[in-house]
Amino acid sequence: MHLSGRCVCDSDPLFVEEKHIHAADLVVGALENAFQECDEVIGQEMEATNQTGGCTALAALYFQGKLYVANAGDSRAILVLKDNIVPMSSEFTPESERQRIQHLAFLFPKLLDGEFTRFEFPRRLKGDDVGHKVLYRDYFMEGWGYKTVEKADLKYPLVHGHGKQARLLGTLAVSRGLGDHQLKVIDTNIGVKPFLSCIPKVNVFDFALHDIKEDDVLVMATDGLWDVLCNDEVAHVVRSFLAENRTDPQRFSELAKCLVCRARGKKRGHRWMLDDSHEASYDDISVFVIPLHNREED
Amino acid sequence: MHLSGRCVCDSDPLFVEEKHIHAADLVVGALENAFQECDEVIGQEMEATNQTGGCTALAALYFQGKLYVANAGDSRAILVLKDNIVPMSSEFTPESERQRIQHLAFLFPKLLDGEFTRFEFPRRLKGDDVGHKVLYRDYFMEGWGYKTVEKADLKYPLVHGHGKQARLLGTLAVSRGLGDHQLKVIDTNIGVKPFLSCIPKVNVFDFALHDIKEDDVLVMATDGLWDVLCNDEVAHVVRSFLAENRTDPQRFSELAKCLVCRARGKKRGHRWMLDDSHEASYDDISVFVIPLHNREED
Repeated sequence: MHLSGRCVCDSDPLFVEEKHIHAADLVVGALENAFQECDEVIGQEMEATNQTGGCTALAALYFQGKLYVANAGDSRAILVLKDNIVPMSSEFTPESERQRIQHLAFLFPKLLDGEFTRFEFPRRLKGDDVGHKVLYRDYFMEGWGYKTVEKADLKYPLVHGHGKQARLLGTLAVSRGLGDHQLKVIDTNIGVKPFLSCIPKVNVFDFALHDIKEDDVLVMATDGLWDVLCNDEVAHVVRSFLAENRTDPQRFSELAKCLVCRARGKKRGHRWMLDDSHEASYDDISVFVIPLHNREED
Repeated sequence: MHLSGRCVCDSDPLFVEEKHIHAADLVVGALENAFQECDEVIGQEMEATNQTGGCTALAALYFQGKLYVANAGDSRAILVLKDNIVPMSSEFTPESERQRIQHLAFLFPKLLDGEFTRFEFPRRLKGDDVGHKVLYRDYFMEGWGYKTVEKADLKYPLVHGHGKQARLLGTLAVSRGLGDHQLKVIDTNIGVKPFLSCIPKVNVFDFALHDIKEDDVLVMATDGLWDVLCNDEVAHVVRSFLAENRTDPQRFSELAKCLVCRARGKKRGHRWMLDDSHEASYDDISVFVIPLHNREED
């Protein structure tokens, strides 16, 4: 099957139909492969130029009447439509991917180099916990069990902390992304990359099934925005800003700026504050606002 | 935290609350551990007694006002309530678990012993496909991509076939279950067990949130029933049978028998038929019907 719907191979249509393969599946597959290839290229470039670093990755593609959002990391994309909000991604963090990460450590214990425990505990264990029963979770558990604490359980946990504080190997707050091929846990030879996946989850939105209005937009932003503003708050800013700025030809990029400023807050003395009581975002705040109306039909 | 809600460890309640750990999570964890331990014991027993074999596993537990259904395999449990049907499990098959299975083969290629390809293709490839582009999926793909066929791609696929015909290593129609520790692909030394998970998915139903009626039941059955009757058809049989048999004290086990007979069909010549045109179930048909009303409150 070709993207145009034409069959490439005369013997295939039956099987393609049996497997329910549609043109959209080829776009999803292309994005999945693109993330893998991109990560490889980044790795080669970084090594060749002796650079380090990595990033969360969020990509949007509009093609043949459908919007594809591919996400590997802790950024987020939402559609703000007239009457509802459509989440187009979910975050990949050490917490949301605990079982995948623990399973890898179970399969390849050497990756922890004797420095970490793959078990999760509700809190860091101390020396006097040894011999007592505590709650724990292993890779195959969504629920919790009890185990008697051994000395090895006192090691730092592979996945530890809660919410914004959750860390992979005490190092990274994300569990998917591009780059970071050379990243080691500080003062050790333990690589983070084996646990860091570059595989995106791709969500598809079919415009044919929705009546898109003039102020409907796609908002893509890094965690700096979402840490301090929830989807509903962002949607409220989007709707009121666009309603008040009907004619400005730059209104979508102005809206993106407005969202960044909201999350950055205001400087009060030496601190950036959202208001009198809440600290503003201290993380990177990148925001894109993309109008969905009047799309060029291909 | 103890199942009674009492805290075992004075220093823990804060962390238990932070992690949102509830008594139900301990029951889920206990079921997950029980499946693992059960599988180990089966493996030891089988080896000691020189037996072979394995099974799909579906367990239901009622405890402190909640129903827990743990499933590892292709059986299914549903609640048939007065006004709706609540699925309590989903099937684990080579198709539904393709990515997990392919990923394992990617991590440990030796498990395929050069006899299988981990790629999925819409159909078996033939010699004259070599050099041509065909659709394929690897472990990291929900979508499809194109690859140029190499000779190695002509090997039998790790996961192949569609629906009821889908097979793991050309051997098993399920991807989770207990036992089968010694199972090999016919005429090879390739073990199936590494790909066969014994980890259940546990679903919880809270009776406190529902008004349970006299004829509400839990139906647990093997694939022999679900192959020929969908949830709606089973619910229809349940409701009409129980409405017509109000007083029979054995009515729930009679209903289970009735469901088995429906799926087994009637003998016409040498074949078992559902009606004139549809063949009856040729798979194992085991059915349990468990009333939900008048539960002993513990």
